[in-house]
Order: sequence, then structure tokens, then C-alpha cells
Amino acid sequence: MAPIQNVKGMRDHLPADMMLRQYIVNTLTRISESHGFEPLQTPIIEYAETLEGKLGDEEKLIYRFEDHGGRRLALRYDQTVPLARVTAQYAGQLTLPWRRYAYGPSYRGERPARGRYREFYQFDLDIVGSASPLADAEIVAMLCEALTALGFPGFVTLLNHRQIIGGIARVSGLSEEAAGGVYRAIDKFDKIGADGVRAELIKSGVTPAAADQILELVQIDGTADEVLDALAQKLAADERAVAAIANLRAVLDGLMAMGVPAEQYRVAPRLARGLSYYTGVVFEAITPHWPEGSLLGGGRYDHLIGLFAGRNIPTVGLAFGIDRLHDVMIELNLGPRPQTTALAFVTLFGAEQVAESLRLAAELRAAGINTLIALEPGNIGKQFKEADRRGVRFALVLGPDELARGEVVIKDLQRGEQRSLPRAAAISLLAEALSEGK
Amino acid sequence: MAPIQNVKGMRDHLPADMMLRQYIVNTLTRISESHGFEPLQTPIIEYAETLEGKLGDEEKLIYRFEDHGGRRLALRYDQTVPLARVTAQYAGQLTLPWRRYAYGPSYRGERPARGRYREFYQFDLDIVGSASPLADAEIVAMLCEALTALGFPGFVTLLNHRQIIGGIARVSGLSEEAAGGVYRAIDKFDKIGADGVRAELIKSGVTPAAADQILELVQIDGTADEVLDALAQKLAADERAVAAIANLRAVLDGLMAMGVPAEQYRVAPRLARGLSYYTGVVFEAITPHWPEGSLLGGGRYDHLIGLFAGRNIPTVGLAFGIDRLHDVMIELNLGPRPQTTALAFVTLFGAEQVAESLRLAAELRAAGINTLIALEPGNIGKQFKEADRRGVRFALVLGPDELARGEVVIKDLQRGEQRSLPRAAAISLLAEALSEGK
Repeated sequence: MAPIQNVKGMRDHLPADMMLRQYIVNTLTRISESHGFEPLQTPIIEYAETLEGKLGDEEKLIYRFEDHGGRRLALRYDQTVPLARVTAQYAGQLTLPWRRYAYGPSYRGERPARGRYREFYQFDLDIVGSASPLADAEIVAMLCEALTALGFPGFVTLLNHRQIIGGIARVSGLSEEAAGGVYRAIDKFDKIGADGVRAELIKSGVTPAAADQILELVQIDGTADEVLDALAQKLAADERAVAAIANLRAVLDGLMAMGVPAEQYRVAPRLARGLSYYTGVVFEAITPHWPEGSLLGGGRYDHLIGLFAGRNIPTVGLAFGIDRLHDVMIELNLGPRPQTTALAFVTLFGAEQVAESLRLAAELRAAGINTLIALEPGNIGKQFKEADRRGVRFALVLGPDELARGEVVIKDLQRGEQRSLPRAAAISLLAEALSEGK
Repeated sequence: MAPIQNVKGMRDHLPADMMLRQYIVNTLTRISESHGFEPLQTPIIEYAETLEGKLGDEEKLIYRFEDHGGRRLALRYDQTVPLARVTAQYAGQLTLPWRRYAYGPSYRGERPARGRYREFYQFDLDIVGSASPLADAEIVAMLCEALTALGFPGFVTLLNHRQIIGGIARVSGLSEEAAGGVYRAIDKFDKIGADGVRAELIKSGVTPAAADQILELVQIDGTADEVLDALAQKLAADERAVAAIANLRAVLDGLMAMGVPAEQYRVAPRLARGLSYYTGVVFEAITPHWPEGSLLGGGRYDHLIGLFAGRNIPTVGLAFGIDRLHDVMIELNLGPRPQTTALAFVTLFGAEQVAESLRLAAELRAAGINTLIALEPGNIGKQFKEADRRGVRFALVLGPDELARGEVVIKDLQRGEQRSLPRAAAISLLAEALSEGK
């Protein structure tokens, strides 16, 4: 007998899970298209060279293999590098700035753990070819719009800029090279706390006085304006930080004009975001109801696409991790939880009633009601039980008596009520139940 | 510079293509859910042993590799074997009969050719765990419903039964073993014609007299009833063929009761379908407007799932090849062809008007109108040109004069008309254009 196991670290998504995942993806698709983003789909497999040299240490996690002609292939580990390839490859066909969304799986050979999968699905949004702060603002606004639509309670999007952290390192007397260590240490702030970050900074060669100053600056708190005003004062000597603060102010102006509620975003100078390819604004959404980590994040990366295109193409984007969103929504009990796609179950009373019952099912579907049919005539009680076990709310019966009267028996399995109605009235009743459920 | 090529035989789907592909997938999803089918998603990667031993000669086309722990993995080549694995692995959680749909990519290392891709997307429908002819009928009815919804002109679904072909071989004096050669020869009927099939049969050891009889029987033509009556007469001596004919009659009764128009299906005893795992009804949709081959097909396979489950689980299903459907729809000019997801483009007149223009865009989106925004203020003529190049129909301008009057300039780029309207009226006009376009 063949093995009957899915590959370790890669999940089967059974229907109940899939329905919530589809709800998430449909919500993100709708929001993306409302902003005029266009869908792109690239192969899950790339030439290995396309993917190599962009992931740093993590590169060892890439799944690689050879095709039948001996060419080196690899499974993509994100949708950003393929976007960069596409932008370069089809430059003549694309009008920049280009807003594209993409949904699909990526692969990393990680040690499987809670929330870490070797096959994971992402929904990416990027605006390719614009350095405008309105592009950053639109991406952040869509992040807030999406989490609102999905029902995440009390979420906040933290915003920062790479050159604010850079400025903090520089005004604290650190060299450009040492600033990298500052990113990495600060990135752990929420995990190891201020003392942990201080210890880590000192261990990496930062003086205690500089570490204290860095810690003071990254912990500046308050409204977005208060934080930026304080940073502007402290970082006035650093030209790049001053420009970064102005850039972030323009992004915040955009968010306000786009109607994003002020409580949905905040400036957090301690936000580093791990990925080395970010060059400007970075952001991350958190919620107090999920203290284990961020929901998702993104930022501006102006150089990555240039690796393929041969010239810098400023880009800002984010990736919704569908697995993370799904898992958190389950944990927080968010979103719809249908047990099935069907609202009605048409039973088969006996061989004589099969044809008419199938016609009834077709009428229900024509009225927009998702309808299952029994496949064998027989005991109606058993068929009611089957409908109920599947989570279908209404079961319908066309027996010889009902057929003679032009009626249908309709049983509400949720409420345990049963009645006989004229056929048209039965269909209307279900259509009403459908529109109430929406 | 990194290589900028997609892998040979695997395609990038740029937005215009993707919008049509999504239209196809959304149509199939809607029809699937209207019949109460539930979504399933399995990993694209399986343990190599799961996939091996089911594809025959084609097995050499499987992409295989090892994970970081040295386990043998493979990319799936269809969604049917994973369905079989899932049915066995989660037997306790699934209520049979189980209607499931699945959409995703599969892989075969084929020689790339027109219409043959190494990464291809399928949308599968299967009813697992029912031997009822109503299950076969429902799958065929959904095939017809889908091709109707997608607008395929004049398509016909050909139906046959494996044991009708078996019976034809047996009454022509062939042994059970020789019948396999008959399937393979008949499968080429539409490519090599009657003479070609005859030659092939004789080459495989069939006597000329038997070959003539086989050819006469597989070419029986007429209405479904006429064909089945003729077959019933000619195959009366073969018990299994008699049962197959009765089974096919029950499927046809189901199709009629389900409201499938009679001109959409036909019984074709020459239909063999290559796949060796079919055990009962087989079917295939064709259209005279695409003489190059079938659009798609499927059938009943009662033994495959048993390879995993350890007992036979009767199943019937089909797979829509999204690449084939898409390519044929392009060729026949079917389906919607939007150039973009957006209906409106909000320009930015000057820095002073940015905030109010972004507010206008948010109002348009709230009214259900997909809206792009410019990211830099500047020359309005250039912005009109950009909107037009993107295929957006309406461009809107909020200049200082319009703002003072509470109006918006709205330019219909399709008709070349431009006028200034009160803001609410402008939004209504676009909402109307949207509902007309639907």
C-alpha cells in the first residue's frame, strides 16, 4: 500500500480551513483590485541562479533540483525575487509605476515549528517604480484596510524608516558598518527587552554610553507627530535622518488624507524589520490580542529589482502571510466559519421522485442557493442526518404527497422546524435565509 | 546581473492573461459551490513514493528531488493521486460521498510544445465514495454548465463506458488481454481515422473480420437513445456491456432531469480516454470551433483511491485544464478581456490638491469603483495619457476651480468626452458605468 502521509512541514488544507483561507484571499483580492492592482502569476519554479545570492544565510534553506536536461532549478522562497525578474524581463510591456498583486505558495526547508511551514502561501502587494511617499502610504493604507475588513481587533501598524535607525546609530557615534549590528539588536527589542538589547549592543562593541543613547532614542513614544518632532530634534545633525523624517511625515499626511483612522498607525523608532533589502520606510502590524509577534509587515526596497533590471527601480510592498493570518483568526475566533458551501440538501424520497427532486435542486441553484443532492433514494431520516452532519441548514423533501400538492417539505435542521410549503414559497424562504446569512 | 528568464516550459502570466484565468477559475468555483462541492488544497510536493507506480510510462516525467534530510520528494503531476492520499489519511474526518474541488498547479517534465506546459493549472471536481449514476450525471452536468457559462459555442460532451468498449472487443472475439490494445487504437480514432485504426488493430493481432466488426460498432451514431439501443442489440451477449449500457442510460436520465440541454451531450462508443485508471463512464467535451482536440474530459475510477485506502472507493471526476481553456478562449475570442482592474484614475493637479484628491479616490472605492491614483502631481494631459495607456476608462481632476465649485472634472477616455460635475453626481455616473459594464 502506498504511503499515506503529507510531507512533513507542508499542510493539507481540508474544507473548513480552506473556506476561511479563501475568505482571506478573496478579501485581499477585492481590496487590491479596488486600488487598481493587477494580478500576476509566476511559476513556482525558477532557475536556481535567479534565486541565489539574495537570501544571505537562509540560502541553504532553498529547495534545489535538476530538470530532465540537467538544468539547475529551485522552488521560489518568496514572490519578490520573481517580481524583480518579471519587471526586468517584460520591461517593454509594463507601465511604471506598476501595482501588482500575487498569491501563491513559496518554499523554505525550515525546521518545522508552530507557525513555521515549509510550504507557505503569501499574498503580495507591491508598487513598482515609484519613489513617491504616496506609494508607501497607499500600501500601508491597504494593510490597515485589510486588517479592518478581516476583523482584527485593536491592531496598530508601526512605522519607521531605515535612515532613522541609521541616524540614531550615527548620532550615537557608531560607524556605518556598526549600524548593521544596531538593526539586528533593535530587531529583538520586543523579544528580549531594553536590557537585553543593551547587553547585545555592548557585546557587539558599542560603548555603554552610546548603547544608552540608542536605547533612549528608539524608545521615544507618543503620537506620530510627537515622536517625529522628538526625533527631528535629536537627529538634526544627521542629514539622511532629517530627510527620512520628512519622508515619513509625507507618508503620514498621505495616510490621513486616505482616511486611515489615526489609531491604526504609530511611529516606532525601535522597528527594524530583519530583511536586509529594505532601504526606506518599514512597517509592521501588531495586535495586543496576539502578543506572540507581528501579523505581517513590509517596506520600501529600492535596490532589489535593480539586480535584474540593471538600474534602480524604487519599490514598496508587503506580503500577507496567509498561514499566519489564518492561524491567528482561528485563535481569535475571527471571520466566518461555514462548515460547508451548501445551504440546502435535496433528499431523494424514492426512485419515482428522483427526476422531480433533481429539477428542484436545479431551481434552487438558479435562485443562487448552493444545493447538495442525495445520490441514492431511501430513508429520509437518514438523509436528514447526513445533511445535518455536513452542516447544511435546510433539507428538502419531495415525496408523492408533496408532489401531488405542488409543495415541498422543508426542514430547518438548525432550529428543528419542519413545514410543507408551495414550491415557489420554499425557494423564496431559502433565498431569504441566504441573504440574511450574508 | 542575475538571469532574467522564466524556466523553459513554465509560463509567467501577466495581468491581461491573469484576469481571464481568474474569470475562468471564479466561474468554476461558483458552479462548484452551487453544487455543494468543498475546497481542498494539498501541498504541491508529495513523498516520491506516494506518486510513484501510478503513471506508467509517463513516470519518468515526474520532477523528483531530496529534501534537506535526504527524503525523496516529488512535485505532483495531477491532483487526483493527492486526493486519493487525503481520502485515506483523513478517512475519519470525511463524510462520504464527498464532493471536493481543487485548484492549483501540477508538473510534468514534458518536451514543451504548443499547449503543453511543464507547469500547468487544473481545476478538479470529484465525487468520492459514490457508485451512483447520479454522481456521474452531476459531474457531466457541471461540465456542461461550466462550458455554457464560459461561452463555448456548440460544444458537445461525448459519453461512453469502459465496459461498452470492453464488450465490443469481447463480442468481436478478442480476449480480455487484447482489449487493452483496442482501447489504445480506438483512442486515436479522431486523429488517424477509421482506416488508421483498422491498420493498427490488425497490426496488434486482431483479425481483419474482427477489426471490421469493432469499427462498425464504435462508429454507431445517432441520438443517445438510438446509439444505446443499437449497442444493446449488438452487445446483448455480453453481460458486462449490458450492465454498462443500463448504467449509461441512468446517467442520461440524470442529465435530462438536471436540465442539461439534449444537444450538449451524445453517446460515442469510439470514445476511449487514454488513462488506464478509468473503470466506468468516461466523457470528453469537444467543440467544432476547436478541431484540434478535446477541451477536457474525465470519468469514473473506482480503484485508484483504494490503492491508498485499502478498499475500493468508487469515484467519478474531471479536471478542467485552465491553460487549455484559457488558450482556446483567447483563440475563439470568448470571455471578458479587461485591460485593467480599475475603472477610474484620480489625477493629482498640484501639491495643494493632493489631500482632497485622495479623499475623492477613497469615496469612489467606497462606492464600489476600483480606482487608481496618480502618485505625483503634475501635467494633467500627461496623467490622462497614462490613464489611457493603462486602459482605465475615466480620469478625474480636482483642480483649484473645481474644488472651489464643489465639482470634479471627469473625462471619458473611451469616448473622448469631458465635463465638470458636482462631486456626488460624478460618483453616481461612474457607479452607473460600472453596473452597465457588468
